[in-house]
Amino acid sequence: MYDLIIIGGGPAGVAAGVYAGRKRLNTLLITEEFGGQSLLSDDIQNWIGTKTISGFDLAQNLEAHVRGQETVEIKMPARAAKVEESGKSFLVITEKGEKFEAKAVVVAAGARRRRLGVPGEAKLEGKGVVFCSTCDAPLFPDKTVAVVGGGNAALEAVVDLFPYAKKIYLLVRGDTLRGDQITQEKVRASDKVEVLFNTEVREVKGEKFVAAVALKNNKTSQVSELPLEGIFVEIGSVPNSEIVKGRVELNQFGEIALDHKRAATSHAGIFAAGDITDEMYKQNNISAGDGIMAALSAYNYILERDHKSPASEVNNGV
Amino acid sequence: MYDLIIIGGGPAGVAAGVYAGRKRLNTLLITEEFGGQSLLSDDIQNWIGTKTISGFDLAQNLEAHVRGQETVEIKMPARAAKVEESGKSFLVITEKGEKFEAKAVVVAAGARRRRLGVPGEAKLEGKGVVFCSTCDAPLFPDKTVAVVGGGNAALEAVVDLFPYAKKIYLLVRGDTLRGDQITQEKVRASDKVEVLFNTEVREVKGEKFVAAVALKNNKTSQVSELPLEGIFVEIGSVPNSEIVKGRVELNQFGEIALDHKRAATSHAGIFAAGDITDEMYKQNNISAGDGIMAALSAYNYILERDHKSPASEVNNGV
Repeated sequence: MYDLIIIGGGPAGVAAGVYAGRKRLNTLLITEEFGGQSLLSDDIQNWIGTKTISGFDLAQNLEAHVRGQETVEIKMPARAAKVEESGKSFLVITEKGEKFEAKAVVVAAGARRRRLGVPGEAKLEGKGVVFCSTCDAPLFPDKTVAVVGGGNAALEAVVDLFPYAKKIYLLVRGDTLRGDQITQEKVRASDKVEVLFNTEVREVKGEKFVAAVALKNNKTSQVSELPLEGIFVEIGSVPNSEIVKGRVELNQFGEIALDHKRAATSHAGIFAAGDITDEMYKQNNISAGDGIMAALSAYNYILERDHKSPASEVNNGV
Repeated sequence: MYDLIIIGGGPAGVAAGVYAGRKRLNTLLITEEFGGQSLLSDDIQNWIGTKTISGFDLAQNLEAHVRGQETVEIKMPARAAKVEESGKSFLVITEKGEKFEAKAVVVAAGARRRRLGVPGEAKLEGKGVVFCSTCDAPLFPDKTVAVVGGGNAALEAVVDLFPYAKKIYLLVRGDTLRGDQITQEKVRASDKVEVLFNTEVREVKGEKFVAAVALKNNKTSQVSELPLEGIFVEIGSVPNSEIVKGRVELNQFGEIALDHKRAATSHAGIFAAGDITDEMYKQNNISAGDGIMAALSAYNYILERDHKSPASEVNNGV
């Protein structure tokens, strides 16, 4: 029986692990890998206190920090599949069916990129269909590419492609761009970019590599085909919240509804942090802060559960 | 007229500054110094992703990061004394009477620990005199330490020290313990702890590091000296919220009441982050996360104010 099980090895999970270790909680951290969604970034310029760092180096720093905690055991690579209840405790069950028991759980399993779900997309993933502009823009020198999406992520992908691609189609399902004004202006000012509104991708075509996309105008119903070599899918992300579905309250996007003052979920003893939650701004440092909050709240919860302390005002004032 | 004025140069203010810069907000950051309350820590082991760093080095890293932002101007050393309104905008007035105008304000002026105000305390701060048990308890393995205070913070500091210190004196000025009954019982049950009532610290002694404290019994007037290696001053903290008093809602402790999902105060256009707020756990990384939230919410607010964009979904999802 552990005191605490932490699910996830991104900034949220690691932060929770570091603080759980400092509180001497007997902890198991289950993750597939360290670093979270930033792992593949070439150049992170907004990890506070660090002017520039690669996603790989940040992941190594995070891993080293949590591995330095004596009371924290790491199970990796492993994927948590389900959180169940067992009396006053929780069972975390991995995809391979291993079971671990703990008094409290911090769910920090992050999110994954949203897919289009059209024919050809899965087959050609990594063969022209890509999900990370920071990572993959340099792979398309002098190529014709499309970016799918109308928000910040899509706009930033277009900007990432400026130094590389010859021609960039921005495929927007609605009839306006969302996202930052400044980025919109940047995108509109480039003569490399052509914005197609009311446009949906119906199929990704190609044998070994992407060769074209089939499009449909959702106002005129006109269909067309666009020859190109790359397609950047930037339509948001999906929280990995299946593991606690039905057990804690989720919002309409499947994100865990969080009490943001305590990093508590709707279920006593289950805490959450990072991109899996309804945190408004998905940012590494916000996830780290959440993770700390979750660990400290879990610590309070465990003290209370074990009838040791009222667990109030642990860090606040006099 | 600036877009944004940030008050404070700790993790919260710097994080806000970095993100304001990335959003190309024309920003003024006003601070007395960089680093916040951790500046004097010898060894910070809980800045996530960094196994160990001095407060001084962390402050330098924070300063370098925010100074790297093209659109952020730094005014230092300067102390903001008051935030006033001027039509749709805000005036920040420094102690020297200089006035700066902005569309929005992030208040991240932190808090100050209440000091004992006795000889030796200032000289040995960070050299055995410490103010954060969550941060610094692990620095005293097998040491003899004292905790000063009789409320929850002091009791919790004692609990934080259980896994580390060899002997813990709890120095209480009054003749009872305040704070939660169960925590009191926990403290009393430990044979590591000795509670000295009616006890005032008169002096902290030591050359390079704390070696002893001089005590006086305020009933018998008897003086004594206690050899020890650490002294945890847990007599409360004071938020630097005078600058916005009467303008935003404060709680009973004078902390800014925060909407923790947006880092928004009760006053539109004024955002807040870090130890000046009612954040439950005062920790550097939580402050940094708050600061990012405050900057992004300020950015949304400014866009809305300038009628440029619906200011929605700037960072979330699609």
